[in-house]
Amino acid sequence: MRMYDVIKKKRDGNSLSTEEIDFFVRGFNDGSIPDYQASALMMAIFFRGMNEKETLDLTMAMAHSGDMLDLSRIPGVKVDKHSTGGVGDKTSLSLIPMVAACGCKVAKMSGRGLGHTGGTIDKLESFPGFSTSIPVEQFEKNVNTVGFSIMGQTKELAPADKKLYALRDITATVDNMSLIASSIMSKKLAAGADAIVLDVKTGSGAFMKKYEDSVSLAEEMVKIGNNAGRKTIAVISDMDEPLGYAVGNALEVKEAIETLKGNGPEDFYTLCLELGAKMLVAGGYAPDDANAKERLKEAVSSGKALDKLAEFVKAQGGDPDYVYDPGKLSKADLVIPVAAPETGYISGITCDEVGICSMILGGGRETKEDIIDMAVGIVLCKKKGDHVEKGETLAYVHANDQKKADECIRRLLKAYSFSKDKCEGKKIIKTVIGL
Amino acid sequence: MRMYDVIKKKRDGNSLSTEEIDFFVRGFNDGSIPDYQASALMMAIFFRGMNEKETLDLTMAMAHSGDMLDLSRIPGVKVDKHSTGGVGDKTSLSLIPMVAACGCKVAKMSGRGLGHTGGTIDKLESFPGFSTSIPVEQFEKNVNTVGFSIMGQTKELAPADKKLYALRDITATVDNMSLIASSIMSKKLAAGADAIVLDVKTGSGAFMKKYEDSVSLAEEMVKIGNNAGRKTIAVISDMDEPLGYAVGNALEVKEAIETLKGNGPEDFYTLCLELGAKMLVAGGYAPDDANAKERLKEAVSSGKALDKLAEFVKAQGGDPDYVYDPGKLSKADLVIPVAAPETGYISGITCDEVGICSMILGGGRETKEDIIDMAVGIVLCKKKGDHVEKGETLAYVHANDQKKADECIRRLLKAYSFSKDKCEGKKIIKTVIGL
Repeated sequence: MRMYDVIKKKRDGNSLSTEEIDFFVRGFNDGSIPDYQASALMMAIFFRGMNEKETLDLTMAMAHSGDMLDLSRIPGVKVDKHSTGGVGDKTSLSLIPMVAACGCKVAKMSGRGLGHTGGTIDKLESFPGFSTSIPVEQFEKNVNTVGFSIMGQTKELAPADKKLYALRDITATVDNMSLIASSIMSKKLAAGADAIVLDVKTGSGAFMKKYEDSVSLAEEMVKIGNNAGRKTIAVISDMDEPLGYAVGNALEVKEAIETLKGNGPEDFYTLCLELGAKMLVAGGYAPDDANAKERLKEAVSSGKALDKLAEFVKAQGGDPDYVYDPGKLSKADLVIPVAAPETGYISGITCDEVGICSMILGGGRETKEDIIDMAVGIVLCKKKGDHVEKGETLAYVHANDQKKADECIRRLLKAYSFSKDKCEGKKIIKTVIGL
Repeated sequence: MRMYDVIKKKRDGNSLSTEEIDFFVRGFNDGSIPDYQASALMMAIFFRGMNEKETLDLTMAMAHSGDMLDLSRIPGVKVDKHSTGGVGDKTSLSLIPMVAACGCKVAKMSGRGLGHTGGTIDKLESFPGFSTSIPVEQFEKNVNTVGFSIMGQTKELAPADKKLYALRDITATVDNMSLIASSIMSKKLAAGADAIVLDVKTGSGAFMKKYEDSVSLAEEMVKIGNNAGRKTIAVISDMDEPLGYAVGNALEVKEAIETLKGNGPEDFYTLCLELGAKMLVAGGYAPDDANAKERLKEAVSSGKALDKLAEFVKAQGGDPDYVYDPGKLSKADLVIPVAAPETGYISGITCDEVGICSMILGGGRETKEDIIDMAVGIVLCKKKGDHVEKGETLAYVHANDQKKADECIRRLLKAYSFSKDKCEGKKIIKTVIGL
């Protein structure tokens, strides 16, 4: 088999066979197929697309390019959850303790990554002593006893995907639904869970800005997951404004804890209930959505979900006191109220701008080497549809540097838009795919 | 400027600016733009195409990526000729002496290259002592005194094209008219002639198999040439069967000499007259086609054209006696007649198969290091439309190895097809573009 022929076949609009896709992924991964042939194939796929079988084949080949996690020593159905990412997305911190309190097993391997704030692991490190660098034996034990565990990525999951994504990123070949779906799903399949719930964000702060694109991506991923024998459900959720009110590492941890106490922002709590219900149903832990949501609410109101978080933090070396007293979490030196420049209804918040504001304060990571400031961030007071009087506080900026705070405030004010007319608030759940 | 944005712009169907194309060619040529971005751009161009301005910009940028030949020290209009290549294509050997005998200046820099037989330089080396490794001063002097000269490629003409073509060749991005046209024309523009005549072959032995494709390519090249300020004309000629009768190095030199004596195959002589007339007209050496063809015929009948070849061979160190006595050229040990397997009309000859037969005998070069056997080849006796009796000689195989001869004969017989019904012969000139 020659890579030239594989490229030409796709270029000319034909479907690639399983053997051809395996040949490409294996050769690209081991370096025998050069980058310039891979990028030419990616561009041909950008124009010609891939059918359902090709997409599955590519996903499976990339999933099998490295270690495939074996979770079989953990009894029960393991459910994984994945978010396409957005601003203020602290979902895992509340959601996983909630479903674990309902008996659902979650064994998660997680990376750090770049973004407006740190990833889940970074946020969890707000708890002094907490570590995800734990041996596999302890990881498995924690899932069995606590109900869930999060481990740093020690194994190399889907290395071919990592290499291919890096190439696509610099050759303008990212924007193809099948390629995006197979990239995400290859890592999920390698991570070994039996069922997968996907939180596909849509709107100005999401990877997918357009609703129809988010639906297409969700449909592709659900097809891949189910074709690969993993029960897969996707929830399309709003990311046209930040999720909840807090954006920043410790600030989001506090909001997640408040949510587990029943005091969370409505949009965020609604999303946790929706995703949690799908996890319980997909894993066979609940017969239907209504039953699942009842139990999730009970887990919060009874305090069991909060206890699960504390139990988890303790099992991985962290101080559980911080869960019950989040005031102990790190705080910024400056907390500056941002005043509304006019009276009216908030007609929109440019979501990714709020993310950039967090970056400016030092809350995110642009390169792998960047050190995150855990304390800084923004806490919104008003979101779309809310009425404000001129001078009323729109948001609080938590900063450790006055200059950065000024720059942040300047941009934050630009991110808000106002209207004299009443505006509808955002609906957090857009639709569900795969049920 | 970022290469990513250039790729994305073309991917999304937009036209690239002169600055963007210059940025790409310069960066690719100096290595600052990696192959994988170049191949992604090439695939995007494959799908999106390039407009007339982009094609000209790419051609000019590649032409200027290396040395631009300066022929200004040679007085008069210099005319160049380029063939897209085919089987039995010995055109330059007869054509250039013919036009030179009519006063047309031809200053040609030529490479060797790969193929079914050697290139023009290889063929010319059939004359003992002949060399194209001459200093520029002598090259210029020969054009001024003899009327033409052919020099080995000492300068690096259009290196960006060479590099880009090599990449396209292994990434399935060759087949785009604008890219093919700009590749050919970048070298022609760098070679410095004032006017260019293109011999675009069409048919089973040509790079362009389909007539419409040959026309598109010719049109693209003529536009580039004229837009770059060089008078350019293209002749589309048949390559559905070999040109003339001889395929092989010394065998083609003999046929070219016979043609200069007025005894050449009709198709080949017709092509030389057509291309020659276009060269004389494009260079302003003749007022019209009819006048040009009269003078070219006269150059042959008077013996002036043959004398020009002898003069040229002598001026570059070769033995001119061989021109007047081609029987002295190297000969193969075995000359084997190939008998017609049936009685009927020849309905076709698979042209590229005849080329492969020449390769099998050792007449061509697969890699740069291969040594060409100058003596071997095939001389056809019958072409399309001719009637043959079973057992009559179809062709002679000139070989230096019986095994290779056997293999050659086996394939040659398969290349011929026969019909009981009368068939039309091939018309050598299909059309002319750019007059």
